[in-house]
Amino acid sequence: MSKHFTTRLHTAIADKKTPALVGIDPRFHFLPDELQEKAQSSGEDAWTAKARAFAEFGCRLIDVVAPLIPAVKPQAAFFEELGPAGTTALAEVIQYARKAGLIVICDGKRGDIGSTAEAYARAYLAGEEASSTPWGADCLTVNPYLGADTLEPFVKVCLERGAGVYVLVRTSNPGSGEFQDRESNHQKLFEYVAQVVEELALKTSENGWGVVGAVVGATYPEELEQLRTAMPHTPLLVPGYGSQGGTAADVAAAFDSEGFGAVVNSSRGINFAFRSDKYKDQFAPHEWEQAIERATHDMIADLAEHTPAGKLQ
Amino acid sequence: MSKHFTTRLHTAIADKKTPALVGIDPRFHFLPDELQEKAQSSGEDAWTAKARAFAEFGCRLIDVVAPLIPAVKPQAAFFEELGPAGTTALAEVIQYARKAGLIVICDGKRGDIGSTAEAYARAYLAGEEASSTPWGADCLTVNPYLGADTLEPFVKVCLERGAGVYVLVRTSNPGSGEFQDRESNHQKLFEYVAQVVEELALKTSENGWGVVGAVVGATYPEELEQLRTAMPHTPLLVPGYGSQGGTAADVAAAFDSEGFGAVVNSSRGINFAFRSDKYKDQFAPHEWEQAIERATHDMIADLAEHTPAGKLQ
Repeated sequence: MSKHFTTRLHTAIADKKTPALVGIDPRFHFLPDELQEKAQSSGEDAWTAKARAFAEFGCRLIDVVAPLIPAVKPQAAFFEELGPAGTTALAEVIQYARKAGLIVICDGKRGDIGSTAEAYARAYLAGEEASSTPWGADCLTVNPYLGADTLEPFVKVCLERGAGVYVLVRTSNPGSGEFQDRESNHQKLFEYVAQVVEELALKTSENGWGVVGAVVGATYPEELEQLRTAMPHTPLLVPGYGSQGGTAADVAAAFDSEGFGAVVNSSRGINFAFRSDKYKDQFAPHEWEQAIERATHDMIADLAEHTPAGKLQ
Repeated sequence: MSKHFTTRLHTAIADKKTPALVGIDPRFHFLPDELQEKAQSSGEDAWTAKARAFAEFGCRLIDVVAPLIPAVKPQAAFFEELGPAGTTALAEVIQYARKAGLIVICDGKRGDIGSTAEAYARAYLAGEEASSTPWGADCLTVNPYLGADTLEPFVKVCLERGAGVYVLVRTSNPGSGEFQDRESNHQKLFEYVAQVVEELALKTSENGWGVVGAVVGATYPEELEQLRTAMPHTPLLVPGYGSQGGTAADVAAAFDSEGFGAVVNSSRGINFAFRSDKYKDQFAPHEWEQAIERATHDMIADLAEHTPAGKLQ
C-alpha cells in the first residue's frame, strides 16, 4: 500500500515550514549567459545543446531550492519545445528533484479518454516510487474538459501509487472566464468542475484531504476564497503569484487555518530573478543562483507574513 | 508564405480519394508477436526496447497505409507512456510519415496559457516544413478549457507555418456530456466552443476552410450533423469510427456535398485488425500488415459507400 499523496505533501510542507512551490520553466534566452554560451559553443545540434542547458539549469536550481521548499513544478511545454532531447532533460530534472527529496508536480495539463487517459496516468504518475515510471513524477496537472469519466483512470493510478493530480478548475489567464464562467442553473462551469473534483477528493481522502486537487489561479482571489470553502477536502495548486500579479494577500484564502491545503507557485519570478528589476542590482549575472535563493527566501517570508502559512514556521 | 493547412489537407484527400485517417496507437501487448518477442529478447531496458518496437510498428504501418490514405494521427499518450525513449519513437514515426507524403496530426490534446501555449505550438506544429521543429507534425489536437485567448498562440503559429489545430469540441467518450452539454442561455458548452472555433476558422479561411478545426466524436451523430451546419468553415476530425461504435452512416453528416471538410479516424480497428474477430480468421498472425491493408481498404470503401466521400472516388 502506497502512502497517500496529500499526506506525503503535507509532511513535506510541515518539514520545510512553507507551502512555496517553485516552477521550473526554462526558456533558452532567459537562461544565465554562461549556460547560453556553453550551449552555443557545444558543437551539438541546437535542440540537444539547449536541452542540456535546460537540464543543467533545472538541476542547479533544484540544488538551491531543495533545502528550502517542499515541491517543484516543471512545466512540460518548455521541455517539449526542444523535442525528444527536451523530454530527456525533463525526465532528468524530475528524477534529480526526487533524489533531492522534493515532491514533483509535472505540469503537463494532460487529458484524454479511457485507455489513453490511463496511458498518461501510468506514464507520469510514479507516486511514491520515483523509478516506477520513466518520468517519475509524484503528481500531474490534468484538464477536465473531456468529462469526469476521463479523470477516473488518473484517480485509480493515484491511489495505487501514492500519486496525485491537480485538475484545472479556474486558470490564471485573462481569458479564463470565457468558458469557465459560463453559468447553468446559477452555477458556473468552474464551480461545477469544482463540485466534481471535491467529490473525488472526498472519496479519496485521508486525514481530511483527497488525492485529487484543483488548480485555482491567484489572479482571481474572490473565486479562490469561494472555492476553498466549496472544496474543503481538495488540495489546491495556486499559480499566478509573482510575475502574473497575484500577491500573498490574494492567496491567503487558499489555506486552512493551520497553513495546509495549498501550494503557491512562482516560476519566472524565481527562475529568472537575476534578470528582474527587483534583484538585478543586487546580484551580478554570474550570481544567478544566489538571486534564486534570495527570491525563494523572500517568497517564503511573504507567504508566512500574509497568509496562514505563517503558522507553519 | 506557407501553404494553408486545410488546402494542403484537401489536396491530399483529393489525391487519395478518401478522407480516411488512420490513428497510430501502439500498445505493447497488442503488437504483433514477432515485435513483442524481439523487444523482450533485445537485452535493452524495457522502455527502450518497447519504444523501438513502437517505432518499427508505426513505420511498417505507415509503409502499408501511405499509398492509400491522406493522413495519420499518432496518439502521443501511448508513446509518452514509455518515457523519453517513447517520445523519440513518436518523433521518428512522425518524420517517417512526413517523408512518406502523409499529413500528420499529432494527437496530444495540449493546452496551456500565454507563452506556455506558444511553446506547445512551436514544438509540435512544423506545418509545411517537417524539419522546422523537433516533432515535425502538420497539426495538433488542442483542449479549449483554458479559454479562447489560449488558442491564439496556436492560430498564430498555424498561419506562419501552414499548420493546423483541431480543438476538442464534442469528444467521443460516454461521459463527454458531463461538462460539454451544460447549457447556458439555451446554448450548450460544446455549442459555444464550436461558435468560438468557427469564428477562428472563418478568420483564417482560404477556399472556404480555416486552419482551426474541431474534434467531434462519431459516437454522437446528431451533434455531428448540427455542428457541421454551425461550423461551415471548420474542418472536422471525427474519432470514434469502428472500435468505438461509430458507423459510416453516423459520420456522413461531417462532409460537405463533395466529400470534403472532414477526416474520419480509426485506430484500434486498423492497427490491430489481425487480432479482431473480423479479420483474424483471414490472416495468420505474421500477416498483420496484410490485415492492416485489408482493414484500411474496407474502411475506405465503407466511407465511400455511405457518405459524400464517395464523390472523391
